Amino acid sequence: MKYINLDHISSNPLLPEVKQVMIDAINRDYHNPSSQHKAGEEAAAALEKARVQVAKLLNADTPKEIVFTSGGTEADNHAIKGVAMANADKGKHIVTTNVEHNAVIRSLRRIKSDGFTVTSLSVDDKGRVNPRDVAEAVTKETILISVMHSNNETGTIQPIEEIAAIAREKKILFHTDAVDSVGIVPFDVKKIGADLVSFASNTFYGPTGVGGLYIRRGAKVYPILDGGVQENNKRAGTENLIGVIGMGAAAEIAVRDIDQRYAYLKGLKDKFLRELPQVLDEVIINTHPVHSLPHLVSASVKYIEGESVMLMLDDEGIGVSTRSACATGSLRASHVLLSIGLSHADAQGTLVIAFGVDNTAEDVDRFLKSLKTVVTTLRDISPLYSKAAGRG
Amino acid sequence: MKYINLDHISSNPLLPEVKQVMIDAINRDYHNPSSQHKAGEEAAAALEKARVQVAKLLNADTPKEIVFTSGGTEADNHAIKGVAMANADKGKHIVTTNVEHNAVIRSLRRIKSDGFTVTSLSVDDKGRVNPRDVAEAVTKETILISVMHSNNETGTIQPIEEIAAIAREKKILFHTDAVDSVGIVPFDVKKIGADLVSFASNTFYGPTGVGGLYIRRGAKVYPILDGGVQENNKRAGTENLIGVIGMGAAAEIAVRDIDQRYAYLKGLKDKFLRELPQVLDEVIINTHPVHSLPHLVSASVKYIEGESVMLMLDDEGIGVSTRSACATGSLRASHVLLSIGLSHADAQGTLVIAFGVDNTAEDVDRFLKSLKTVVTTLRDISPLYSKAAGRG
Repeated sequence: MKYINLDHISSNPLLPEVKQVMIDAINRDYHNPSSQHKAGEEAAAALEKARVQVAKLLNADTPKEIVFTSGGTEADNHAIKGVAMANADKGKHIVTTNVEHNAVIRSLRRIKSDGFTVTSLSVDDKGRVNPRDVAEAVTKETILISVMHSNNETGTIQPIEEIAAIAREKKILFHTDAVDSVGIVPFDVKKIGADLVSFASNTFYGPTGVGGLYIRRGAKVYPILDGGVQENNKRAGTENLIGVIGMGAAAEIAVRDIDQRYAYLKGLKDKFLRELPQVLDEVIINTHPVHSLPHLVSASVKYIEGESVMLMLDDEGIGVSTRSACATGSLRASHVLLSIGLSHADAQGTLVIAFGVDNTAEDVDRFLKSLKTVVTTLRDISPLYSKAAGRG
Repeated sequence: MKYINLDHISSNPLLPEVKQVMIDAINRDYHNPSSQHKAGEEAAAALEKARVQVAKLLNADTPKEIVFTSGGTEADNHAIKGVAMANADKGKHIVTTNVEHNAVIRSLRRIKSDGFTVTSLSVDDKGRVNPRDVAEAVTKETILISVMHSNNETGTIQPIEEIAAIAREKKILFHTDAVDSVGIVPFDVKKIGADLVSFASNTFYGPTGVGGLYIRRGAKVYPILDGGVQENNKRAGTENLIGVIGMGAAAEIAVRDIDQRYAYLKGLKDKFLRELPQVLDEVIINTHPVHSLPHLVSASVKYIEGESVMLMLDDEGIGVSTRSACATGSLRASHVLLSIGLSHADAQGTLVIAFGVDNTAEDVDRFLKSLKTVVTTLRDISPLYSKAAGRG
C-alpha cells in the first residue's frame, strides 16, 4: 500500500519539473559563478535567473534584495545576529514571541552574551500575539522586532501587517520567519512591509538545504558568513548552484500555482476538520480557524501519547509528526504547545498533520479510519481515559 | 573546439558516478532525516552513509566528528568564530598567517570587535610560514592557531604537521583550512594532528555549496548556526541532503582513486612546468617546487596584465584564473601574492593554472601554444616589456 505522507511541514517532495531542472543542472556541469571567464558567466546567469524567480515569489523590489542561504535556519540566524551586530550602537533590545522557531529563539539566546536583552511576548490559545503587546514592549533601545509569519507546529498566522506597521512607525527593523508560509500562502514583502524575511525552498516543493533571506534595500545587516564577495557581499561562500536552480524553478511554479495550491490544500484540511469529530471525541484543535496555513492542523488528542499514535500510524503506512522535526530527540514538551496554554499531558498527545499537493481526498479518508483505530486502541489501555470516562 | 577548463581551483566538474548518485537521490524524494517515522529513518540512513564516507576520506576516529556545512566558507567561519565564542574565557588571542583565505581573514576581522587580537605571520617567497614563528607568536592568551593546509592561489602546502605539534604541545586548538587539499592530496587528520579541518566537496569532484568541518572529539566549539538539533547539535538546519549524498559518493571515489589522481594531476603539472620555459621567458613560478598541490601552478608573467591574458585565453576556449574566484570583483591586488613578496606589477601579471582529472596532455599542449601567442601579442604592445628588453 502507498505510504501516505501527512508530514509536509517536515519535508515536501520535489515537483517533477523541479527534479528535471536539477537533473539538467547536474548534467550541465556549471562552473563557479564568480569566475570571470565564459564558463563562469554561464553559471552566473543561471544563478541570477534563480534570483529573479525567487524575487517574484516575494514581490521584492529588486532581485538584489534576495540573499541565498543554506536554508531557513541560516536565514533566521543571519537576520537576528546580522541586525544585532550591525545596529548594536543604536540599542540592544529585541522584541519577539514565545512561539518562534528554535532558529530564532536560540539565535536570540546566543547574542544575550553580547549584552542584548529580549522581550518575548506570550500568545493566545491559538498562538497569536496581540500587536498592542508588541507596541508596548518596544523601548528606546529596541532595534529589531522578530515575529514569525506562521507557526510550524500550530499553523497559526500572526497579525504580521499590523506588527510591521508598528515597527515602521517606530523606525525599528522588522524580521519575519516566513519559512512555512512563502510558497504556501500568497506573500508580498511590500504589502506586508517587512525588512527581513526568512524563507526555505522545500516549503514550496524545492530542495532542502537551500533558502534565502530577503533584505529590504537599505536595511542594515552584517553577514554571518564572512569571506568572499558572493551574494553582493552579503553572504560569503560558493553557492549551492544545483539547489539554487531547483529553488528558482520551484519559485516560478509557486507563483503560477499559488491560488490553486492554496485552495487544494485547504480543501483537504477542511475535509479533515469536518470529518474528524465523526471519528474522535475529545480532541483540541490548536490551529486558528481563520488565520492559519491552508495545509496544517495541530490536534491534541486527549488521554494518549502523540508519539504512540505516530508510531502506530507509521506501521499503517501513514507519516504524521508530533512536533518540529528540528526538535526531534529533545525530550522536553514543545515550547509552542505550552505557550498556547496546553497542559503537559495534552501537549504530549498532539499530532501535527500537514497536507501536501501529493495528497488526495482518499488519503484523508484512510488517515481518519486509521486514526480512529489507533486512538481507540490506545485509549482502551489508557488509565486516564477510563477515569475521565467514568469507566474506571 | 572543446573548452579547456584549467581553472579547477574555482570549480571542478562532477564525476559521472556522483551525478548518477545525485540524480537517484533527486528521484528518490527523501524525507527529512530528523523525522521520526520510517520515511525519516530512510533519509537519516542516507545522511549517515555519507558521513561515514566522508569520515573515511579524512581518517576521522568516528563519523560523529564530521559536521556537514554549506561549504568551506561556513566551515572556516564555524571553526574561527565557534572556537572564539567557546573559549573566550581562556584567552582572546589567535595566531594565523598572512596568506589565509578570506573566509578565515574576515572571520578573524569580525571577532576583533569582541576583543580578540590576532597575530598574522608573514611567509617566505613561496608562501610558507616558518613553524618557529608560529611557536614564538603563541602567548598565554592564545586559544587557536589557524593555518591553511594549502593555499588556493599559490598551491603551496604549509608545514602543517609541525605546526599542529606546536599547538598540541601548548594545548591550543589547531584549525587548518584544507578546502583545496582534501580529496587532492592524501589527508589524515590523525597523522596531521588537527583539531579542526575545513573541507569542501567540490575539490574532490562533488557538488558546490556543500562541505564540512571535522571537529575532533572533545574540541570545544560553539555552533554558528543555532536552531534545531541536527548534526549532533553542532550545526542547526535541515541538511542539503542531495548535496551531502553527492559529497559522500565523491569522498568514496576520492579514497579509492587518490594516489592515481595525485599522480595523474602531477603529471600534467610537471609537463607544463617542464615545457613552459620553451614558450615563455621572464615568468616567476610562485608555487613551491616540492610542498605544493599536485595540480596547481601560480605563474607571474612579467610585463603584462594577467586579466588580459585570461580574457584572451577565454576567447581561445581556455579558462584560467587570475586569483581566487571568491575575490572576483575586488580591484585590489591579491593579498597572497603581495605577501610572498611580489611587486604590484608582477601580482597583476599572475595566472593561476589548476589542472583537473578531465584535462589531458593535449590540453597542456594547446594551452602552452595559446599562452605563447597571447603573451607575445600583449608584450609586443607593452611599454614595460620594450623598456626591459632594451627595445624601447
